[in-house]
Amino acid sequence: MLKLYYAPDTIALASIIALEEAGADYALGRVDFARGEQRGGPYLAINPKARVPALETERGILTETPAILLYLAQRFPAARLAPLDDPFELARLQAFNSYLCATLHIAHSHRMRGSRWADDEAAFAAMRRKVPQSVGECFALIERAHFGGPWVLGADYSLADGYLFTLAQWMEADGVDPAAVPIIAGHRRRMAERPAVQRALAAERGERRLAPA
Amino acid sequence: MLKLYYAPDTIALASIIALEEAGADYALGRVDFARGEQRGGPYLAINPKARVPALETERGILTETPAILLYLAQRFPAARLAPLDDPFELARLQAFNSYLCATLHIAHSHRMRGSRWADDEAAFAAMRRKVPQSVGECFALIERAHFGGPWVLGADYSLADGYLFTLAQWMEADGVDPAAVPIIAGHRRRMAERPAVQRALAAERGERRLAPA
Repeated sequence: MLKLYYAPDTIALASIIALEEAGADYALGRVDFARGEQRGGPYLAINPKARVPALETERGILTETPAILLYLAQRFPAARLAPLDDPFELARLQAFNSYLCATLHIAHSHRMRGSRWADDEAAFAAMRRKVPQSVGECFALIERAHFGGPWVLGADYSLADGYLFTLAQWMEADGVDPAAVPIIAGHRRRMAERPAVQRALAAERGERRLAPA
Repeated sequence: MLKLYYAPDTIALASIIALEEAGADYALGRVDFARGEQRGGPYLAINPKARVPALETERGILTETPAILLYLAQRFPAARLAPLDDPFELARLQAFNSYLCATLHIAHSHRMRGSRWADDEAAFAAMRRKVPQSVGECFALIERAHFGGPWVLGADYSLADGYLFTLAQWMEADGVDPAAVPIIAGHRRRMAERPAVQRALAAERGERRLAPA
């Protein structure tokens, strides 16, 4: 059985959503960030990067959200979470996810994780001040150039939707007004209505119930 | 025919290496960063993110190195640049590439691209000071936990090798001593001996010759 190591309010939610959309049989392993468990020996043996998510499979551990998501789409093809039979469309999906991972999520991370990239408080404060602009520009670019509608890729729901939703949950805390990005705000509302997303959010809060068979 | 938009000394080299390893028929379109062409209207119509690489295909433009690389592996399967028939191994490859994209490359970018994440010179200087440590830790982690040998994934060369090589080219400028990461330094030497890598480096310098038929 698959086991996803996660922490609440992290990017691991995107993988939980994919697991729920896939109807996967999976367990969750909570990593307590408040107690620093992600940097402790037992967890470092699972993921030496000291990050979540990490997905335990029969063959070993997988890390990095874009990789875990694609793996889940391939493992559960009936859920049609990615255009697996069309390399160009798959690359469009991977490009979107890569932008979320390496540009939008990184912009967001400068609000709370400045110590990855500098060592002094003044620099952390300077980074925090820029987050509303840098994150806001990412969402604006997605609206303008990279959102098909009604779902990210267009007519078909995909892995990109749960990933975007996860980052969009942090928009207000990042100082971005949802009214400035109405397409993404609308997407977020539609996502919140999906039963799989509701199950994923409950699971993240520790209120997981078994999905209906 | 494929056309790759690139600039010298950027991450676009990873895609040029993949094109050469694949034996692809392709053109290069140089984007002049010194003149700010990446932010000009004609290029923004190609890639609204104002970045390289961008790959022009018969069906449209693809961006983001991890996505372009996987697309090339799928388009040229005979080159065996990715374990396309094994979702777990493919996810390991994608996880490695995602780490390069969103952690190592981002750490590096804080040396010259601080204006993405702050607005004042003192913060840029604080970011620059941390680069030798943050980039060095990424390479050390790869050596310790994520390098199979002799190639990244193990016995088989893959997309990950050209991508790692591209970032390793910047090691000295990032303040990381190659002697501290001998496995990656050795990989870099072996990579530099590959004919496809030599052709890619010549192409990046504007000295491209047609590959042998």
